[in-house]
Order: sequence, then structure tokens, then C-alpha cells
Amino acid sequence: MPETSPDDEFMEDRWGAFVRRFDAPLPATGSGALDGWTLAVKDCFEIAGVPITAGSRDYAEWRGLPTADSWAVAALRAVGARAVGTTKLHELAYGITGINRGQGTPENPAVPGAIPGGSSSGSAVAVAAGLARFALGSDTGGSIRAPAALCGIWGYRPTHGLLPLTGAVPLAPSFDTVGIMARNAPDLDAVLRALWASAPTGAPPDGPEITEVLIAIDAVERCSLVMQRAIEETASRLSSRRYRLRERRLDVMDEIREAQAPIQGAEAWSVHKDWIEAASPTIGDDVAALLRIGADRSATELIRATDERTRLVAAVGSIIGPSSALLFPAALGTAPALADFDDPARSLANRRGMLTLHNVATLGGFPAIAFPVQAPGETPLGAQLVGARGADQRILAVARAVE
Amino acid sequence: MPETSPDDEFMEDRWGAFVRRFDAPLPATGSGALDGWTLAVKDCFEIAGVPITAGSRDYAEWRGLPTADSWAVAALRAVGARAVGTTKLHELAYGITGINRGQGTPENPAVPGAIPGGSSSGSAVAVAAGLARFALGSDTGGSIRAPAALCGIWGYRPTHGLLPLTGAVPLAPSFDTVGIMARNAPDLDAVLRALWASAPTGAPPDGPEITEVLIAIDAVERCSLVMQRAIEETASRLSSRRYRLRERRLDVMDEIREAQAPIQGAEAWSVHKDWIEAASPTIGDDVAALLRIGADRSATELIRATDERTRLVAAVGSIIGPSSALLFPAALGTAPALADFDDPARSLANRRGMLTLHNVATLGGFPAIAFPVQAPGETPLGAQLVGARGADQRILAVARAVE
Repeated sequence: MPETSPDDEFMEDRWGAFVRRFDAPLPATGSGALDGWTLAVKDCFEIAGVPITAGSRDYAEWRGLPTADSWAVAALRAVGARAVGTTKLHELAYGITGINRGQGTPENPAVPGAIPGGSSSGSAVAVAAGLARFALGSDTGGSIRAPAALCGIWGYRPTHGLLPLTGAVPLAPSFDTVGIMARNAPDLDAVLRALWASAPTGAPPDGPEITEVLIAIDAVERCSLVMQRAIEETASRLSSRRYRLRERRLDVMDEIREAQAPIQGAEAWSVHKDWIEAASPTIGDDVAALLRIGADRSATELIRATDERTRLVAAVGSIIGPSSALLFPAALGTAPALADFDDPARSLANRRGMLTLHNVATLGGFPAIAFPVQAPGETPLGAQLVGARGADQRILAVARAVE
Repeated sequence: MPETSPDDEFMEDRWGAFVRRFDAPLPATGSGALDGWTLAVKDCFEIAGVPITAGSRDYAEWRGLPTADSWAVAALRAVGARAVGTTKLHELAYGITGINRGQGTPENPAVPGAIPGGSSSGSAVAVAAGLARFALGSDTGGSIRAPAALCGIWGYRPTHGLLPLTGAVPLAPSFDTVGIMARNAPDLDAVLRALWASAPTGAPPDGPEITEVLIAIDAVERCSLVMQRAIEETASRLSSRRYRLRERRLDVMDEIREAQAPIQGAEAWSVHKDWIEAASPTIGDDVAALLRIGADRSATELIRATDERTRLVAAVGSIIGPSSALLFPAALGTAPALADFDDPARSLANRRGMLTLHNVATLGGFPAIAFPVQAPGETPLGAQLVGARGADQRILAVARAVE
């Protein structure tokens, strides 16, 4: 994966990133900072006149042909981006591995035989393989950061609510966000500035400069040794950039994952219920099982999980504070092999392990930037910085200091 | 019911207002605007050392003896009030009639043979009968305003969240509020100013003066002719006080009631589940049925009702605006006979009719003041003014202009 390859619209998609690759890129609708940049669009963002699968066999037929661009696609086309195609995803964006037996699982261009990560699998693969300069994805519980980390690129999950989801297929609205992937920090920076400028509420507010980075040490301890070393190395670079480093135990990561799961499941069922009951679509076993569990959740379970959410988000919020960021692994290690997910127990442990790293940001709607931290030439390893709500610009600045 | 009777601590409680009448009033803990004022406390607010029933046979034993005053009781005792006893309520505060076969239903001092209204039944009766100068109650879906209207006194439901519920038995936290009842406007005014001054967030903010009163005409049309005439008369008085009057159809009152019911039921079950499962208490049929329905609500029903809530509250909020108040009946007419609730169909229609009038304020957490509007010497009829969130002081000023 050459870091600096020019995008090649004509390069063969031998990784299976795309659902639909356009014969020619869609023209931009305006001119600006992203003039001529090629854009891969996760196939849960509507594009006028393009069928949308949401990663599920029967969705496009039920949805009908979109007649308008989703907010994010329109905002990017308006500043010069040219969409080159729609990319595969974990079915209904409901999974962290990117494995999709119905649509096909994109191959990880950086780690042969490994999962790409999900749910924004095809978007990460398209960017990592040089099939698009940047990509649009979504992040509900890690769906940008996991595939970015496993494919060795940059990823951004905004503060919840900052960027409109109009025209995006929802999964769990109280967690869903638009997200961006790019090959390097300057590209990500340029895309984010353009998107923020288009946001109806304007760019995320300025705030106190982040001067302290808290290493989420109980997250680090759960990861492979190579990841632990990479986080140490990242921390030492940040220290040399004059950030104050401190180890901090969160203690509530499992509780956070356990609070998010029932809320996300119940919201996902609420979102998809009408479609599923009306169209009886074919849905893969893994996602169908999650939806069934969501359908069976009681109102009381939801209320109690929501109360837990309030408590846990306050706890994390008070740890982060206005001038700190949390440094986390964005994966347990390098991308695990596809075969690791054939065994149900190992698969569950792996998926839980990944979600635990991502749900700290998602439960509270905190912004996060995932970025590569492997040594040059090594297999991708991703870290992430998580900031207070609205600290999007400021955590990007910290991540850029690692470069 | 002599409007100006002095409180008589020694007057017999022949209406059955109290659960427990203290041998001597509890002393105030401080001195202030309410020096010597006698206070009746709805028996869902904790008082140190006093058993608390929440209107339910087995609650006090499960709860154990409170060791501290609830926030509202403490705030009132600190400015001079003397609590004279704890008052009956609809079981677990979950009902609008005040009928409580377990604890006994207080008699309406103003309308022989009629319901007192609920859930703050005993508090309304104590004030109306002159057994206390003012009373503490709570309002989740009309529990202050309905009994105030039916007993001919004043009632106040604050903006949701303004007054702390610490030490109060919850029913449905996203609707629950502390509330106050008093015999006349100057008394209510004095109590509210004292309470607001104690609120942790301070008094409700000033705002633009209310200059316009919107008559909720589709609410008025549902009421008895005598109520319709009383509302007309009230409107014409407000007009003579130079308020601009306008008829306004809300159109969403039934949808509002139907959105509140599942949320309230699910929250009530979540609140009481642990107690009920642990103690298997005896609970009256009406409330037990509501709790069972709440227990059976799915997370999806709750999510959809909550989405509806957001939509409906925005609709009502945009009608009210910053310088208007809504004028509503606070009951369908004069207090209906107890016997009207023996027939299940009539009972349901009556209860639904009452809730419909009150849920417009409760769904959105809007403040409301209920006040008597019958002609002198006539059977009580209550109206209410509902304002924007935070308009508590300003709707009180409008209500006082009717006097």
C-alpha cells in the first residue's frame, strides 16, 4: 500500500471494495478545497439516481432510487469532490468486522487474509488501496475507526450531532455519525475543514488548547504487545511535542459496552422494523440475531441502560475535561485473520474487544480521530484520540503532532 | 368552604385528607416568608422519622423510616412552614381521580359525593377544607392541577427540573415535578417565591412579558357548558386587563396523551420494578394494571413514543412562543361523582378526558398554574395557564390578573 500513490480511477478493484464503481466519477457540483479529489461513498449514503444497498440484499428494492444526494455527499461534491463509487459495508452497518457474506467481504489491502474491519469496510479498503483519495463512512460504535486502524489509514468520528445525517441510512440515531477516512493527516485535515464549514451549526467551537494526553491504560492492557509498544511510542512522541502525558485507568469500559449494546439494538430494531416486517428481507445470521435481540428488549431495559449511559458518560466526561484528550488503541492489534471469526467464541471475544475500545467515544457522543501508529513498513496499527464534545478540531491538532 | 378561614390545626379531619396528622405541627427549621404557615405534605415526600406510604399499603415497610427531609419539605420548613401531617394520594401517585380503595379516598369538601381529583387528593382537600394553609404535592400528568381544580383552590406545576425531587417517591422521572397548592393567589405567590429562592438553579429566568393569551379552543370544546362559559368569562377578564386574546386550536391533544401514556408506564415500572419484584406488595387493580402494561412495553414502543414526544413538544412549543400563554380548562367541568367511576367505560372516558387537558403541559415539561374560575358561591371550576419552559413567574402574573 504505497502511502503516496496517486488515486487511480482505472486501477482494478481487486480487493472488492466497491458495490458499484461508476463508469466515470460523478462530477462535482461546485469548486473548492477538494477540487478533483476522488471520493468513495459507503453505500448507506444516498446519491441521487444510484441504488443504495445498506449492505443488505433486499434494501435497495425496498428503498427505491434516491432522488437527492445525502447531506454529506452534497457537501463534498459542492467543494469539488468527485464520487467514484459506492462501497461495501457490514450489513446495515451493524458490525465491527466488515464480514458480509451476502455482499462479499472486502479484502484488507494491507494484511492479506485479514478482516478489513467494519462497518465502513469498503471505504477503508478503497482509500488504503488507492482507489479513492478519501472516503465517506459512518461511525455508530467504531465503524470508521476500526477499519481505518486495521487498514492503516486515518479516520474521523465527529461529535455526535455536528454533521447532519440527512439521507444516510440510520442504524442507531443516538449514536450515528457521519465519518471520514483519508490516507494521511493533511488530506483528512482538508476534508474536515471543508465539511465543518458546511455544517449548519458551523465549525466545532474553539476551546482551550489540549495540553494533556491521558493514556487509557486499562484499554492498552487489553491489547497485543505490539500494540502496547506502539501506544508507548506514540505517547513518547507526544511527550516530545510537549504534551503532558498521564496514565489514566477508566475502569468503566465494560460497563460502557454493556450500556451501549441494548440501546443500539433497540434503536436499530426501531429503525428497521417497518421495512423488515413489510418486506421480510433476507438478512445474514449475525445481523438478524442482533436485530431480534433488539426487538425483544423491554422498555425497562432501555430506560435502565439509558440511566447507565447518563452516569457513565458523566464519568468519562469528567475524566476528559476541557484541555485533555484520551489516547486509546483503535484495535486490539494488527488486523485479525478472517478465519478467526469462524469460531463463535473467538469471534465474540474479538468483536467485544474491539467494541470496548470504541464505545467509550460513542456512548457519550465524543469526537475521535484514528491514526496509524505502526513503525514504517510494518503492518498497520491504529490508535485514537478521544476528546470532549466539540473538541473535534483540537484532537485533530494533537493527532497531527504525532506525524 | 370558607375562602378566608384561618387554618385550624384542631379542626377535625372529617374529609379524610390525612394519612397521618401530627399531634403537634413539626417545628420550622428556620424563619422566613412562611413563618407559622401550616403545611400539608403529600405522602410521597419524605419527612425525617415519618413513615411514608406513597399511597400504597406495603410501601412504608419496604422503604423503612426516612432519615432526612425531602428537598421540598426541607426548603419550606427552612422558611418557617410547620408541617401538620401527611396526606392521601392516588396509589403511587399513578391516577387522576384520587380514588384509593386501599387507603381511603378523601372527600371533596366543596362537592359532596364527588371525587377530590388526584393524585394529590389529600393535599387539595386539606387546603380546601382549611386544615392547612398550603400543601405540597406532585404533578406527573396533572396530579396537582386536577385536584386543585376540582376542590376549588390554586395549584402550581413548575417547569420540569426547576425544583429538585430529592427524597420524593418517583413515578415517571421524565415528567415528575414538585407542586404546590394554596387557597388563594397571594398565598401561592408567597410560597412560590420562597421555593424559587431555594432552587439550586435559582428562580426561573425573567423573560419577555406575556402579552397574549391563546385559548386552547379544542380543549374548551371537550368540556361541559358551564366550563365553557367560565373560560369565556376568564378570557374576557384577561382581555379587560389588556391581554391580547386569541383562539387557537392545538389539534394534537390526543396524540400528546397517547405519547405520554407508554413513556409514563414504562418509567413507572422501571421505578417500582425492584420493589414490586422483591416485596410482592398488594397494589390496587387500577394501578397494578397500569404497571403491568408498563412492564410489557417494548423498547421500540418507548423509542417511538419518545420520537413522537419530541415532535409534539416542538409543535406545542412553537404555538406558545416566548410572550404567550395557553389558557385551558383544568377539568372537564365540576368534580364528577365518585359513582361515575364505578362503570369502567365511563370511568375511562372521564380519566382520558382529564388527562388530555393536563398532558399538554406535562409532555413538554411546561409550567402551569391552575386557578378557580367559577362565579362566587358556585361549585368549583378550574382553569389553567400553561407557559413556555421557564415562564413560571410570568404565567403566575397572568393568572393573578384574573383575580
